[in-house]
Amino acid sequence: MKNYFSSNFKLGVLGGGQLGRMLLAETQKFDIHTSILESNKNAPCAVICNRFVLGDLLDFDAVYNFGKTVDVLTIEIENVNLDALDKLEAEGLTIYPKPKDLRIIQSKARQKNFYVDHEIPTAEFLHYAYLEELKHSIENNIINFPFVWKAARFGYDGNGVKIVRNFEDLKSLPNVECITEKLIPFKNELAVIVARNASGETTTYPVVEMEFHPEANQVEYVICPARIDANVAEKARETALKVVNKLDFVGLLAVELFQTKNDEILVNEVAPRPHNSGHYSIEASYTNQFEQHLRSILNLPLGNTASKVAGIMVNLVGEEGFSGDVVYENIENILKIDGVTPHIYGKKETRPFRKMGHVTIVNKNIEKAREIAQKVKETIRVISK
Amino acid sequence: MKNYFSSNFKLGVLGGGQLGRMLLAETQKFDIHTSILESNKNAPCAVICNRFVLGDLLDFDAVYNFGKTVDVLTIEIENVNLDALDKLEAEGLTIYPKPKDLRIIQSKARQKNFYVDHEIPTAEFLHYAYLEELKHSIENNIINFPFVWKAARFGYDGNGVKIVRNFEDLKSLPNVECITEKLIPFKNELAVIVARNASGETTTYPVVEMEFHPEANQVEYVICPARIDANVAEKARETALKVVNKLDFVGLLAVELFQTKNDEILVNEVAPRPHNSGHYSIEASYTNQFEQHLRSILNLPLGNTASKVAGIMVNLVGEEGFSGDVVYENIENILKIDGVTPHIYGKKETRPFRKMGHVTIVNKNIEKAREIAQKVKETIRVISK
Repeated sequence: MKNYFSSNFKLGVLGGGQLGRMLLAETQKFDIHTSILESNKNAPCAVICNRFVLGDLLDFDAVYNFGKTVDVLTIEIENVNLDALDKLEAEGLTIYPKPKDLRIIQSKARQKNFYVDHEIPTAEFLHYAYLEELKHSIENNIINFPFVWKAARFGYDGNGVKIVRNFEDLKSLPNVECITEKLIPFKNELAVIVARNASGETTTYPVVEMEFHPEANQVEYVICPARIDANVAEKARETALKVVNKLDFVGLLAVELFQTKNDEILVNEVAPRPHNSGHYSIEASYTNQFEQHLRSILNLPLGNTASKVAGIMVNLVGEEGFSGDVVYENIENILKIDGVTPHIYGKKETRPFRKMGHVTIVNKNIEKAREIAQKVKETIRVISK
Repeated sequence: MKNYFSSNFKLGVLGGGQLGRMLLAETQKFDIHTSILESNKNAPCAVICNRFVLGDLLDFDAVYNFGKTVDVLTIEIENVNLDALDKLEAEGLTIYPKPKDLRIIQSKARQKNFYVDHEIPTAEFLHYAYLEELKHSIENNIINFPFVWKAARFGYDGNGVKIVRNFEDLKSLPNVECITEKLIPFKNELAVIVARNASGETTTYPVVEMEFHPEANQVEYVICPARIDANVAEKARETALKVVNKLDFVGLLAVELFQTKNDEILVNEVAPRPHNSGHYSIEASYTNQFEQHLRSILNLPLGNTASKVAGIMVNLVGEEGFSGDVVYENIENILKIDGVTPHIYGKKETRPFRKMGHVTIVNKNIEKAREIAQKVKETIRVISK
């Protein structure tokens, strides 16, 4: 094994947002020297990493030159220059996740084709090079309203996904490569995080459940473990594992799944990195997803993915109508509640719907945790001065 | 409440060692701007804090000037210039723990007098301004061998403490102010961490037990909860709480205690900050001691001190006979074991007995955790290249 700990070994990370920041907590714990490439000089990772390099993640030279300064390269965001990664890999740099997997995952169309090619269940879809092609399909009754439209690339957190119910909805869509999917009437939206190291060791985290707000079509709580039938959970874990194995993936893969009305499991999409659906693990799991990501990309033995206690995560997003210097209103009131931990991502300015932090609620009793989560959600507000 | 989170608020910490480093993990989680004053430019906190200031903690000007740049000042080591703190406090700076408490705690003689004055049980002691005074006492049969000698100031981690059995042992002692204590035949060495905020809210962590190596007189494991009778544990918590209340303390106070053969509880000494005996809390507790320290000095509500699972801590100290660039031999083998988390403090060079890190073992079953802890201790070695 390489000597990673308090040594001259250098880890490089493409991206310096909140996922990078939570990864840094783990590289600090292990004293692994970590460099960050990021285009925003005020990004969450800016001050607290060993070395911060300003540069555009989609720029060949920025990524290539950064890669030449590190021993292992990883990502905290998948939208990076892959040609640079290919060249770095050809020149012998260890890069996890592998550039070939990032190439599949970067494009929702390639992802969907991959699932079909490997008999991984997923919602039916169609692929269009431009919006005009999609309009043409509708006019010719090849597809019918309603359907889900997804931009093939650079979609992120709801951005780039839209339910299209009529011609009016079509008007606001950008003229880019896209896919459409049948609208799946699902019971639950689930996620499974899988880790695999270069030696082929694999672990899966428990299945989590995204609980939606009954009116607004928005995830309110990520709940671990999912309150679902054990057979369904087992099927979800197996499906996620199949994706990882078919990709021959190394690193951490978050697999988002639908549980249909008939208890079928369909893969929605994957993220090749620590994921919002795994944030609960910092407080609830024996090994959190960020430490596990580090273990997987460094080919260290993987840690225990079981939970010490039940965990629920609530995202802290900027409230509508507020922009500017952030204030976390009533944070002292949620700190009064047992088992409540806020994570503040280090963004000085809030904007409507900007992800500013999250709160984890842990408890031995999941129903109690769920009650507290609701109280937390109703108490704290992300506003501006 | 002040707006601490992602704001212009500035926390200052005197000292930048491993305790500061673990505190930074919490200030990063809450995005609280943190400045560190420290004399070693390669100290564990050096790169990862918001602002690092080089300076001698015992120098009046260094401490005073640093204090003028922050909104709240705290410590991670108690040997700091108190005159500077007194002046800063007089000028209105919030400093926790309070300088008056640090003045009592910095001197073992003042600590002991404080316990006697407030009827807090402690081992009998005598106080000497110089070693010569102590020798004179022995020659005049005022005290008899064996006894425990402790330097009144700057003792740290076994340094400054010695069991004196004969005149020969006396020769190696420095000619400094000191105290002597009766050698207490104790059953267990225990510790209780208490937190108190400025509003007077108080919490105590569970009693932990220091398990000693049967031959070498050295702590091998810190075990939470202590495997002792519930009545004795209750008495230990009450005693620790009494120290905090009598000091009118604000911050985190680690109270080291002896359980005598007759189940009496005696205070050994206290540390006014996060402590080695509380490191287990990072993985085992709902609120770890570093977060609790932060909550207490910022007058935030205190967190839940209960444990999710049993926790055991093993210190990683430099092996005898090795000096230079550190290697954590067999660390990959301990990472294979469920519930094992190494913390590497970020010191590039090892020396015999230098504290280089620690390993936490958590498990639902404390006996299982104890078995694993022994395996960890027998596996990992801190050596040099």
